[in-house]
Amino acid sequence: MKIAIVLASGELEKLQAASIIGSIASTLGNEVLIFATMDGLMAFKKDVVENKSWKAGELGKGMLQANAPLFIETLKQAKETGNLKIFACGMVMDMLGLSMDEFVDIFDDKIGVTAFLGMVENAQIIFI
Amino acid sequence: MKIAIVLASGELEKLQAASIIGSIASTLGNEVLIFATMDGLMAFKKDVVENKSWKAGELGKGMLQANAPLFIETLKQAKETGNLKIFACGMVMDMLGLSMDEFVDIFDDKIGVTAFLGMVENAQIIFI
Amino acid sequence: MKIAIVLASGELEKLQAASIIGSIASTLGNEVLIFATMDGLMAFKKDVVENKSWKAGELGKGMLQANAPLFIETLKQAKETGNLKIFACGMVMDMLGLSMDEFVDIFDDKIGVTAFLGMVENAQIIFI
Repeated sequence: MKIAIVLASGELEKLQAASIIGSIASTLGNEVLIFATMDGLMAFKKDVVENKSWKAGELGKGMLQANAPLFIETLKQAKETGNLKIFACGMVMDMLGLSMDEFVDIFDDKIGVTAFLGMVENAQIIFI
Repeated sequence: MKIAIVLASGELEKLQAASIIGSIASTLGNEVLIFATMDGLMAFKKDVVENKSWKAGELGKGMLQANAPLFIETLKQAKETGNLKIFACGMVMDMLGLSMDEFVDIFDDKIGVTAFLGMVENAQIIFI
Repeated sequence: MKIAIVLASGELEKLQAASIIGSIASTLGNEVLIFATMDGLMAFKKDVVENKSWKAGELGKGMLQANAPLFIETLKQAKETGNLKIFACGMVMDMLGLSMDEFVDIFDDKIGVTAFLGMVENAQIIFI
């Protein structure tokens, strides 16, 4: 089965949920394609990751304090071991004048919404 | 393919994402049905639209300042050129005593959740 | 049709939307499986329910003041009359050291993400 995750949220709890669902779904043998856009794209900016400055509620803060494995590590491992790809939204990057250098090294490519929706026809689409 | 979007968020970034995904999905030949409810319905109130008083984060504020095309225009164009319909949630309207006059002219109809779920059987359902 | 709802939001409006969609979908003859995780799990804690201390915007506050039927009642009724089950996320419970005693009596079981995703293969997955 093919699972498409549109990751548009910048909240740590949602980023964690997305990475765990995506990772486990790929472990279960599914093809997983993630499209990071809006605040969900910004969550991968180098400065945000270095400062762990994601929007976080009580639960998210607890995860940071407990040094729980974070979504970026979970996604990197899933990319190595399973059939998971993650794409950066070209429209948001262009709108903000951002280049790939400003993000942590995790994206397979920078693509547009049209390209992504074309790739995920007949997939299960999950918006997070 | 039939795509159903339950639009329950009032954040500008999510509204933009919903309209872009819905619009492009209809351009790609899909039938797209949007159900605006909760804060996602309130985003179409005339006074909210006139004052652009949507809840917006840094990204959303940037879009407003840059005069980026907003979700209402994107959806109106998609309705003209593609197979996209948008419905207002009757339950929320009734609960708040709102009439269609208080919303911008975009809705195809006011319907209930039961009617909407009946229309989108076998569709891909996306909750935004 | 099988519908899986991953309920990760703690906002009252989203909890209400999830319960209404799940309930009506089960009434229409679908099998509905809900997985409460992150803030969506915390919303079922006894102390939160007793104090009605959910995160609520203007709409949600209006629902509380109007004594509108809340998501917990809606879900309990759906469990009695239809094919709807609701599960608590084991990972979040373990991370916070919470036991079933600390939640209202609504869950069919405490399970992990892997178990849930295994149960909902070929289902329509909705993330709320």
